[in-house]
Amino acid sequence: MASSKQICEEILKLADIKINGNRPWDVQVHDDRTFDEILKKGSLGLGESYMNGWWDCKELDEFFNKILSAKLEQKLKEVFTLSIKAKLAINFLISKTLNLQSISRSKKVAERHYNLGNDFYKNMLDPEYMQYTCGYWKNAKNLNQAQIDKLDRACRKAKLSKNKKLKVLELGSGFGGFGKFAAKNHNCEITSYNISTEQVAHSREINKNLPVKTIIDDYRNAEKENKHHFDRVVSIGMMEHVGKKNYRNFMRLADYCLKDKGILYIHTIGNLKSQGGTDPWLSKYIFPGGCLPSAADIIRAAEGYFSIEDFENIGHYYDQTLMAWFANFEKNWPRFKDQYRERFYRMWKYYLLSCAGAFRSGHIQLFQFVFSKGNLGKVYEGVR
Amino acid sequence: MASSKQICEEILKLADIKINGNRPWDVQVHDDRTFDEILKKGSLGLGESYMNGWWDCKELDEFFNKILSAKLEQKLKEVFTLSIKAKLAINFLISKTLNLQSISRSKKVAERHYNLGNDFYKNMLDPEYMQYTCGYWKNAKNLNQAQIDKLDRACRKAKLSKNKKLKVLELGSGFGGFGKFAAKNHNCEITSYNISTEQVAHSREINKNLPVKTIIDDYRNAEKENKHHFDRVVSIGMMEHVGKKNYRNFMRLADYCLKDKGILYIHTIGNLKSQGGTDPWLSKYIFPGGCLPSAADIIRAAEGYFSIEDFENIGHYYDQTLMAWFANFEKNWPRFKDQYRERFYRMWKYYLLSCAGAFRSGHIQLFQFVFSKGNLGKVYEGVR
Repeated sequence: MASSKQICEEILKLADIKINGNRPWDVQVHDDRTFDEILKKGSLGLGESYMNGWWDCKELDEFFNKILSAKLEQKLKEVFTLSIKAKLAINFLISKTLNLQSISRSKKVAERHYNLGNDFYKNMLDPEYMQYTCGYWKNAKNLNQAQIDKLDRACRKAKLSKNKKLKVLELGSGFGGFGKFAAKNHNCEITSYNISTEQVAHSREINKNLPVKTIIDDYRNAEKENKHHFDRVVSIGMMEHVGKKNYRNFMRLADYCLKDKGILYIHTIGNLKSQGGTDPWLSKYIFPGGCLPSAADIIRAAEGYFSIEDFENIGHYYDQTLMAWFANFEKNWPRFKDQYRERFYRMWKYYLLSCAGAFRSGHIQLFQFVFSKGNLGKVYEGVR
Repeated sequence: MASSKQICEEILKLADIKINGNRPWDVQVHDDRTFDEILKKGSLGLGESYMNGWWDCKELDEFFNKILSAKLEQKLKEVFTLSIKAKLAINFLISKTLNLQSISRSKKVAERHYNLGNDFYKNMLDPEYMQYTCGYWKNAKNLNQAQIDKLDRACRKAKLSKNKKLKVLELGSGFGGFGKFAAKNHNCEITSYNISTEQVAHSREINKNLPVKTIIDDYRNAEKENKHHFDRVVSIGMMEHVGKKNYRNFMRLADYCLKDKGILYIHTIGNLKSQGGTDPWLSKYIFPGGCLPSAADIIRAAEGYFSIEDFENIGHYYDQTLMAWFANFEKNWPRFKDQYRERFYRMWKYYLLSCAGAFRSGHIQLFQFVFSKGNLGKVYEGVR
């Protein structure tokens, strides 16, 4: 009978990955318990055995790119030489991992993710705007510029005006960078909602001399006293946390808060398929409750409230963004290693690089939507 | 009890339209049977009574813009002064017309539409490319330029290459104008499918010295011997005739015919809502079997086959296109009036101008989608 190791070997071969090979994307397995963990727990076992230090890979990002580009599901049908057990194992892994079909219901708080503090993020992100979302790399040579270009495009896509002080509602504001950039450069007045105390403290600090009001509250409370109050609604990197059952309510709220000729701009990570769920490892260790929408999910949820005007998919720029974050994390790790220790280092590295590989393979995407109330009276001019 | 006329008056008032008023969008009713027809048959009655010469309107396009912009459904809830009968009538009209909820199953062949002959269309459309789809008016001063700009953008959105002779499959080719433009200007080889004998004859004539092959056959037969054969699939103005139940099969076919890094470009009129149907009058007299997809319909149908890269809504340019077609039709009518007669004139005018008003109000849209197989390996660069 084939051992767990032999089965894993057969599967990895389909993605051109060798166990103990010497190419950058090959894996070095130090502890054979890795194989049982993978076959028993799928994606979760792969990640946890990495965190345990049971295996390594020089280019983890490329390892994931290869796995996710390999179309294992399709190959399974075509490759007759695989053992039955390997086929069953692939089927299991696909259901657990690659198609993201199973939504982990883990309620565990992500290990440290939300307790890391602003100093940690400041050392990983672009220091000025601290954007914890995908940058725009078309013309940028470094992370700082990519984030400035992303913010500038968001303002231009949302049609902020230098001539008229527009009122902007921001749903989910991170560290307050969009507010700072938009208020400074695009002459607007911003009201932001965010539930993270640490982020809001930072946002208030950097925006103290700007027309940016940051409210510590759930975005769902933004509609209080705000009927048709805003010219624009902007949401950058929050939709990932909203949850499928709430998309329609999100749209209802945005419509309610927006004036008649208002524009809604949404920037979010997206799934290729509407039935997609969340990777169990990411869900347990990094983003509890996270759920990626498909493009159809969002556009469908907007029907009756909004008309879709413009859509762009810039997923590959998230690969570059994550690699830049990883380089910063790696460089600054000596400052944090005594505090966070080795297991955290491996978890964080695995998170950043597995996501980079997922974007590189096209397995997940970055969507930017522009919606109007359908009455702009002219063609919306997109920004490219 | 309120008469049919009084009820119609009440309803039209909500859209700021007066019976026998003197503003360009007011209506002159010559025959009171109009009111019964409207209340009995909704959109169909409105159109047929117009064809009968029972009512007129100086700016029919603006009449429709006002009707469709008036959000009658919403007003119905707010306006308490309306009679119960008027409310019931509005509900009926909405279900029959404005929300396009009911799909007419009429199998009647459209009155003359497909038997009009190329000469009639040549006098309405741009003569060189005979584009019977929406032009691109951002920089264009006239219809000819708007259609050239539309064709050029389609080629650029589909990433045709001047350096490499790409193989293009065109699904639904109209009079062959896209093939002519693309082969002349973008160095490609085109295979087009079309079921209209008259259109194909024209296409073959204008493309006889170009690498454009026009096949008289249903697009569904394009997959024969074409597995992964084409670099691009382009479909301009055919999705309106495909039917909701066939969208998924359309995507399967496009995926099957496309090479690995291929691109699919779709240009189609669209509905704001996924449950939208077809206007009964248009369905009976102009486009039998026509059905407008929503953006979510198309994107959802592509899941598993394609990744959505870029989307643009240029619906308002169809208003300009239709008004230009109407001006040509009107100017050249003396050439055709003895052949087609007054009732046809009124039908055609009603068709072009009601559609212009529908696009002007944002009630229907023009969608352009770019899909890849998800493995371009870089961000798709949109064209704006």
